[in-house]
Amino acid sequence: MVTRLSNFFLRTLREDPADAEVASHRLLVRAGYIRRQAPGIFAWLPLGLRVKAKLETIIREEMANAGAFEVHFPALLPREPYEVTGRWEEYGDGLFRLQDRKGSDMLLAPTHEEVFTLLVKDLYSSYKDLPLTIFQIQDKYRDEARPRAGLLRGREFTMKDAYSFDASDEGLDASYMAQRDAYERIFQRLGLEYVIVQADAGAMGGSRSEEFLHPTVVGEDTFVRSANGYAANVEAFTTVVPDAIDFEGLGAPVIFDSPNTPTIQTLVDHCNAELASPAAGIAGPATTDASEWTAAHTLKNVVLALTQLDGTRELVVVGLPGDRDVDDKRVEVAFAPATVEAANEQDFAKHPQLVKGYIGPWSESGAVLGEESITGIRYVLDPRVVAGTAWVTGANVDQKHVHSLVAGRDFTADAVVEVASVRAGDPAPDGSGPVELARGMEIGHVFQLGRKYAEALGLKVLDVNGKLVTVTMGSYGIGVTRILAIIAELNNDEKGLIWPASVAPFDVHVVAAGRDQVAFEVADSLSRELEAAGIDVLYDDRPKVSPGVKFGDAELVGVPYIVIVGRGAADGQVELWNRHTGERESIAVGDVFGRLPR
Amino acid sequence: MVTRLSNFFLRTLREDPADAEVASHRLLVRAGYIRRQAPGIFAWLPLGLRVKAKLETIIREEMANAGAFEVHFPALLPREPYEVTGRWEEYGDGLFRLQDRKGSDMLLAPTHEEVFTLLVKDLYSSYKDLPLTIFQIQDKYRDEARPRAGLLRGREFTMKDAYSFDASDEGLDASYMAQRDAYERIFQRLGLEYVIVQADAGAMGGSRSEEFLHPTVVGEDTFVRSANGYAANVEAFTTVVPDAIDFEGLGAPVIFDSPNTPTIQTLVDHCNAELASPAAGIAGPATTDASEWTAAHTLKNVVLALTQLDGTRELVVVGLPGDRDVDDKRVEVAFAPATVEAANEQDFAKHPQLVKGYIGPWSESGAVLGEESITGIRYVLDPRVVAGTAWVTGANVDQKHVHSLVAGRDFTADAVVEVASVRAGDPAPDGSGPVELARGMEIGHVFQLGRKYAEALGLKVLDVNGKLVTVTMGSYGIGVTRILAIIAELNNDEKGLIWPASVAPFDVHVVAAGRDQVAFEVADSLSRELEAAGIDVLYDDRPKVSPGVKFGDAELVGVPYIVIVGRGAADGQVELWNRHTGERESIAVGDVFGRLPR
Repeated sequence: MVTRLSNFFLRTLREDPADAEVASHRLLVRAGYIRRQAPGIFAWLPLGLRVKAKLETIIREEMANAGAFEVHFPALLPREPYEVTGRWEEYGDGLFRLQDRKGSDMLLAPTHEEVFTLLVKDLYSSYKDLPLTIFQIQDKYRDEARPRAGLLRGREFTMKDAYSFDASDEGLDASYMAQRDAYERIFQRLGLEYVIVQADAGAMGGSRSEEFLHPTVVGEDTFVRSANGYAANVEAFTTVVPDAIDFEGLGAPVIFDSPNTPTIQTLVDHCNAELASPAAGIAGPATTDASEWTAAHTLKNVVLALTQLDGTRELVVVGLPGDRDVDDKRVEVAFAPATVEAANEQDFAKHPQLVKGYIGPWSESGAVLGEESITGIRYVLDPRVVAGTAWVTGANVDQKHVHSLVAGRDFTADAVVEVASVRAGDPAPDGSGPVELARGMEIGHVFQLGRKYAEALGLKVLDVNGKLVTVTMGSYGIGVTRILAIIAELNNDEKGLIWPASVAPFDVHVVAAGRDQVAFEVADSLSRELEAAGIDVLYDDRPKVSPGVKFGDAELVGVPYIVIVGRGAADGQVELWNRHTGERESIAVGDVFGRLPR
Repeated sequence: MVTRLSNFFLRTLREDPADAEVASHRLLVRAGYIRRQAPGIFAWLPLGLRVKAKLETIIREEMANAGAFEVHFPALLPREPYEVTGRWEEYGDGLFRLQDRKGSDMLLAPTHEEVFTLLVKDLYSSYKDLPLTIFQIQDKYRDEARPRAGLLRGREFTMKDAYSFDASDEGLDASYMAQRDAYERIFQRLGLEYVIVQADAGAMGGSRSEEFLHPTVVGEDTFVRSANGYAANVEAFTTVVPDAIDFEGLGAPVIFDSPNTPTIQTLVDHCNAELASPAAGIAGPATTDASEWTAAHTLKNVVLALTQLDGTRELVVVGLPGDRDVDDKRVEVAFAPATVEAANEQDFAKHPQLVKGYIGPWSESGAVLGEESITGIRYVLDPRVVAGTAWVTGANVDQKHVHSLVAGRDFTADAVVEVASVRAGDPAPDGSGPVELARGMEIGHVFQLGRKYAEALGLKVLDVNGKLVTVTMGSYGIGVTRILAIIAELNNDEKGLIWPASVAPFDVHVVAAGRDQVAFEVADSLSRELEAAGIDVLYDDRPKVSPGVKFGDAELVGVPYIVIVGRGAADGQVELWNRHTGERESIAVGDVFGRLPR
């Protein structure tokens, strides 16, 4: 049945929505694909639903090719399983919680690991039942603090989430690769360029974890890549750790006056003016040029306050080379699930041993930082601060620093953490050379959950020897509505959307232009013939609308091919307009079929 | 791609689920279609999803044929529009309510009238834009007090809900008929017998309202029908009102002693023993035989307590012929949105004028019931109590009744209400003869909302004269998951489900039976050939499972055609088993194609 604009439920808008920050949001609303209902919550109009359905079909086909079976869980779920895994709390304010009429706690699921795990536990009992990969396409809910950018960060959104279940690690690897391959095929079919980057599994637990990012300068995520194939997101980047240095024969720490040097830069200036060069062996990590003092020779100590899920607040000091900053995202991952902020005056007031601007791990009377020190404050170090490196850092006395302070000899850490910022030129951990920083948008995520959920929820099967073993799982997500928005974000011009054929709401947009009856008759029969041939037609048959308005609507809506049936219709000529290339050419009406992609 | 049971995500269960009261629930769980997640909330497994998808496709096709366009609203919606129409309150405990992180009230939508209305208001402005019918297939939420019977009464369920928008009443009639016709086609395609019954629009407001009921003795709804085509649900049945009688010349009311007659039966016995026959003109509605006293000659007065939405409690007395009871469902509809219960001791204590067992509208000192009476209690009457009918009823004195009490002369009502029970033999209101009572299950509902929502939410369009007119709406619902359950309820035997071909999860179930390799080879290639021909095959290729177990699973799962490839395979013979008729016959493997429905 030909979709005729004269009665189709579509009204394009002349004005941009007031709250639209990004092109996809602006154009999807203006062209009549979606309509806002509440912050981050949208209704889908017929055009939007058609694009979404095409996207879902591609995903379903590739899931089937990968041997995954479709199921569908409720959005509304009981608290209990999420309580068992700790996520009822971990999700914090991001979870929509409610109570039913009997006072039972329930939630709108943000992801479904728990209930997938329980379903398999319910039905399966043997290694012979495995491997298994099941997926759903379902609406998810996250109560974002700042829903924005239309569908890119909504509070209700559609995801395909798949979960794999295996009895062995090798099995998990195979299931993981099957989904990873499926994702590659999906993005290839969508014509969506992607980079697979190593990712940190973060709060989800697990081991191998990769994100599919679409590289674009407007992306919200930063990632790191080398020319020779290394790619990781900033959270997952790992530092190349220098070898430890033998510290035999290094001089003892020396406290020196450093008036008015509360910042790294003032300290470096002071050192260059007052001290011998670091080449004298009194400071510096092995990798740093030692002809003059730089920030890299100093040890910066950043005091952070962590708030644990149970509300307890704890200080931690991060020691890192003075030329690096603490990276917010890396810090978040390193200390998850705690939330992290800078220590405040109250925190400092509890620890008079810490002298702001002159904090260090050591003082003449012994260790100042570390769980075993006089303050008892946890002290964590950047991996570059290997044993044997010597540093300039605070002496915990106002206006005094210390040099020749040697890691592993004069101070030690409770742990090593990866929280320092990554810089272009840093060596890739796989030895593939220096990295550059780039930006991208997340379009998919595959990762190995491992046994975390299976252990928490008791999913075990009998192995080949009749012994109960805990199942190992993978989790594989694609944000359906997010990808739709990204495709819209990447495929538009100042006139409107330009869909790739794979997900366009219609294959062709036929416009009856002009006032003579012949144009309408030809457009009518062309539309019917195309539709009969299995081509989805949006036919602008509006009788009293000017060609200019019709063309404007066609450009805005973004069907990739437009056929204009106008004055030439009487002579059997129509115009074929390719929205991607912008080309318009006159062709015989009979040639239209051959020129449209099948 | 052939679905092979050796790796398909399906485990049939030997045991009935403990909480399953009805066959559909029991079998859908045992056969691996659905799985309980919380009371009235289910996950869908691959088989269930396939059936649901087929059902949705049929509905979508018929919606398209009826000119309706598909949209999709969020399940999570803000409070405001529901506040405006009063439904935020009216839904009471049945609504899942929650707050987001900013404290904004939200709900999980039980139906979507409000947001559909607002969407059209947003986009449309002229009568030329109309008519419009839009629909969605979406999960709905109702916090049922007693979720039960599996999918038949769940708390999360899938509905197709359509809404029509017209500028005129005639337009609404046409839109209504288009949806009504679509429903008939849907049920015909599903092979689901239906009766269209008049329904009360109830709390939804509006005028014309019809339910599609599937007639079945196990149905939860009672409906009324005449042999000549009248059909209504009990709530919508209207009484044939007798003509008023001229009460000139009737005797005055007479109070008489009636010791120990607190019930209708004791009163009737007393009258027959002590009074002249009702034929003497001292009592009886016009329609009642007057040779001896019966319950129909008495006026029963039932004291009810209504609780309004704002919590106020109010008494109302219903007067009706003593041979009728108050029908719970009719009462609920008549007094909605108030909730109704029998008056309790506290209520009676406030009205000492009411003497239990001897309550009536009249006493020697004047009117006792009615807003203008000494009690001020609202008094409503059954339509049969027309002016001029004379009754025996309580005299508001212990052990005393009154006869010759004439309606319209000695007592009047504040209103006439339809709350009396309906009986087989009652005349149909359309004159089509006596009715019988039958039971059915609701499978669809079409009704004219009228202007209620458009008025509340300000949906107006310019009419042909440039004047703003309020739009009139219709609402059309089908419970997708409910219908799936009803189909399962109607199509099963002691062995399992037996799906109609239109919604079966697969077209054919091929069973490789026996241990010889030939059977598997023939079953393999037959399955592949069928699938290549567009027939959906579930192929039981499990290598180490006995034929008996395979047959049991096939019967339980309920694919309508089973092809058994066993010993005869070597000779090119297979068995075709029709689950509907139970027939099993040996046919040549090449004949399978011709024997399956396309």
